[in-house]
Amino acid sequence: MTTPQMLLAIQIANGYGAQPGAWRMPGVDPSGYTDMDVLVRHAQAAERGKIQLVFLADTPALTVDLEREAPQMAVDPLVVLTSMARGTERIGLVATASTTLNEPYTIARQFKALDVASHGRAGWNAVPTSSPAAAANHGLALPPRAEKYERAHEVVQIVQALWGSWERAAWVRDVAGGRFADTSKIRPVDLQGRHVASRGPLPIPPSEQGQPVVFQAGGGGNGLEVAARYASGVYANPFSIEEGRAHRTALRAAAERVGRDPDEVELFAGFMPSVASSRRAALDRRRRLDEVVDLDQRVTYLGAMLGLRLGAEQLDEPLTDQQLAAARPSPGDPRAPHTLEIAREGWSLRDVLAHGVIDYHPVVPGTAADVADHMQQWFEAGACDGFSLAIDVHADGIDAFVDQVVPLLQERGLFHRDYEGATLRDHLGAPDQYGLDPRLAGAAHASS
Amino acid sequence: MTTPQMLLAIQIANGYGAQPGAWRMPGVDPSGYTDMDVLVRHAQAAERGKIQLVFLADTPALTVDLEREAPQMAVDPLVVLTSMARGTERIGLVATASTTLNEPYTIARQFKALDVASHGRAGWNAVPTSSPAAAANHGLALPPRAEKYERAHEVVQIVQALWGSWERAAWVRDVAGGRFADTSKIRPVDLQGRHVASRGPLPIPPSEQGQPVVFQAGGGGNGLEVAARYASGVYANPFSIEEGRAHRTALRAAAERVGRDPDEVELFAGFMPSVASSRRAALDRRRRLDEVVDLDQRVTYLGAMLGLRLGAEQLDEPLTDQQLAAARPSPGDPRAPHTLEIAREGWSLRDVLAHGVIDYHPVVPGTAADVADHMQQWFEAGACDGFSLAIDVHADGIDAFVDQVVPLLQERGLFHRDYEGATLRDHLGAPDQYGLDPRLAGAAHASS
Repeated sequence: MTTPQMLLAIQIANGYGAQPGAWRMPGVDPSGYTDMDVLVRHAQAAERGKIQLVFLADTPALTVDLEREAPQMAVDPLVVLTSMARGTERIGLVATASTTLNEPYTIARQFKALDVASHGRAGWNAVPTSSPAAAANHGLALPPRAEKYERAHEVVQIVQALWGSWERAAWVRDVAGGRFADTSKIRPVDLQGRHVASRGPLPIPPSEQGQPVVFQAGGGGNGLEVAARYASGVYANPFSIEEGRAHRTALRAAAERVGRDPDEVELFAGFMPSVASSRRAALDRRRRLDEVVDLDQRVTYLGAMLGLRLGAEQLDEPLTDQQLAAARPSPGDPRAPHTLEIAREGWSLRDVLAHGVIDYHPVVPGTAADVADHMQQWFEAGACDGFSLAIDVHADGIDAFVDQVVPLLQERGLFHRDYEGATLRDHLGAPDQYGLDPRLAGAAHASS
Repeated sequence: MTTPQMLLAIQIANGYGAQPGAWRMPGVDPSGYTDMDVLVRHAQAAERGKIQLVFLADTPALTVDLEREAPQMAVDPLVVLTSMARGTERIGLVATASTTLNEPYTIARQFKALDVASHGRAGWNAVPTSSPAAAANHGLALPPRAEKYERAHEVVQIVQALWGSWERAAWVRDVAGGRFADTSKIRPVDLQGRHVASRGPLPIPPSEQGQPVVFQAGGGGNGLEVAARYASGVYANPFSIEEGRAHRTALRAAAERVGRDPDEVELFAGFMPSVASSRRAALDRRRRLDEVVDLDQRVTYLGAMLGLRLGAEQLDEPLTDQQLAAARPSPGDPRAPHTLEIAREGWSLRDVLAHGVIDYHPVVPGTAADVADHMQQWFEAGACDGFSLAIDVHADGIDAFVDQVVPLLQERGLFHRDYEGATLRDHLGAPDQYGLDPRLAGAAHASS
């Protein structure tokens, strides 16, 4: 294959779906949040579609109003991914664990254990925590940003060193000779940073992919630097092709600066498809999802985005000609120009909102072809290497994507027809890595 | 039922068995350490025998010589227990997590997630860490003992408070009314101790047993105090009926002092059965297991235990009459009197060692009846409320115990014939508890 193909991740967090109202939609088990059977079925559906990986974003705090919405996180990422590992064969299993709130030995052990348990399918999204509530749950105040990133470098380096603390050939298992391991090939790491330290070794042998794949999310120069040095995949939230392209270009340049091939780092753009038989049907689906959210508040927000004073009384009306003429998209909100485009099409404000114009990812409500067209356009424009799919409602939305969108992408040569191998590293085409990347040895933040 | 019956836990750590040589025995998969299929099969075998729970002891460090022995711990307790949860229906799932090396929010979240995922079968063994290597893996030096126990109290109290941070009726899931939870019933814990703190709430609703069951292990007055206040089960390592009785009496008295019913705390005595068709066959099984251990060193140790100078040249000979006459069991080693008894029976030193006389639990190598007799004797003497079984080799040893010993115990009325309910709390007859025990509110170490 010489034509590049896109990579797909699916975000499965709470068992319901990416939209706040997902928990109460028809066909959704309202207890899915704690029911591993439900979560495993979602992973199986994604695997049927040859999706490269499941991704669980995570912040260890309550971040939503539980009166109307489900938590946005899994009960625990490790428990959910281990359950999924038991019910699937191929799909990658990736979760966030904070570099601010966890010790490197704990992260190294838990993700490597998942990696061997899943036969080489684990990935770790290494991100500092920006939530004061999450820090307070751990009895901490958030450290300054620079310190958080200094610690992040130390944590990733110590984690990767611990992962490599058994040489690949160390686990001999020589039954006749009575030799379990070759301990000359198992060594402490003895790394001491300014914030964290570990002696090692980790008591876990290499997995089928050696060690888990590192991901990164979150922007800014500091985040880019972490991604450039350690990550094979990056979760990004561009709202336009231009934003995506700019991020991807910066990422590739940063990877090159530290001596890596830029193709080693893949950018996944967050994307929310709502697949239905028509755009109208997709909007109706999303309107039903919106029943639990505070539309009064959203319509006010929509007004601010467009430089207009809007109220709930206009929810079922479109913008007037005068309003359209007076509208000034907020320069501080990258979603505003698209929002004005949708408003100009004459939709009622309720339908404008149902287009997801103020959602945290770009939204395409429409047919499978609409969704595939959007993805093709972004991918071919170089806005991303793939997508991280936030499906509105998992119970039927994953199946709809897998059964309707995936075949279109495959027909167009944009998406693989089967997994390339057995491990997450195989699925991503990520280069072999074991232990710390030797190219970064000179740049190490934690030293022995 | 008015006759008390014993409780049984089975220690499943590394996938091979409790004996260092288990990994290389016939029928054992030498890769079992990382293979969840193997570990799940062991839990299924125990569940077939109606064993109340699986217990994973844990120290996050390499504690053995990997040249000849497998690690004594699981790759990760949470990954292994979650895998077991997916492959079993009833058996309890308990693991150690250090109160010294972990933050209470992390413990609370991970064990509660396992608890909801397993439908109310999780337990947490709350112990401070005494391993300098484990502390060094976390970049720490071990704190003084008093401080470790002060922190242990704070951690358990905050964990239990977090577990109770949703009232039982908080998770309404009212689909028609659009109400996910009643947030008037979900509150922060806002606990601040001297060592740890957490704001909360935990974003996890109650499980079928409310919250995980707390266990304790490790002795001394400090350990007893933790057990008395919080534990429903205690892992102890008595080497004699007298030791067991003394520990159990002290434990029950300590529980009473803090206002609990002493029957709320069950003492599990560590025990290593090696079941075979005869005592000779059991000894041969254990001799084969001993092939990887350094018998020269053990025979020297055996000599020290008996006040004799012994060497490997005598391995296949029994003690001489002169040696038996000169033997003086070491007063500092509670295993010494039993060792001398075995030696007096005329076994070769290799067979004396095969009796497990210097193992870390009492060992009975023999028939199912021998094993059942020992258990009955200890149980009826009040040395324990049950046993924590360290089976020599899991692959066939669990089946042997379940198929041969369990029926004998059942026939004698000493062990239940089926699980009493669906949750670990049901299996243990542990009283209902949710959040912190209100009887301990006045004694709280961590305050809001």
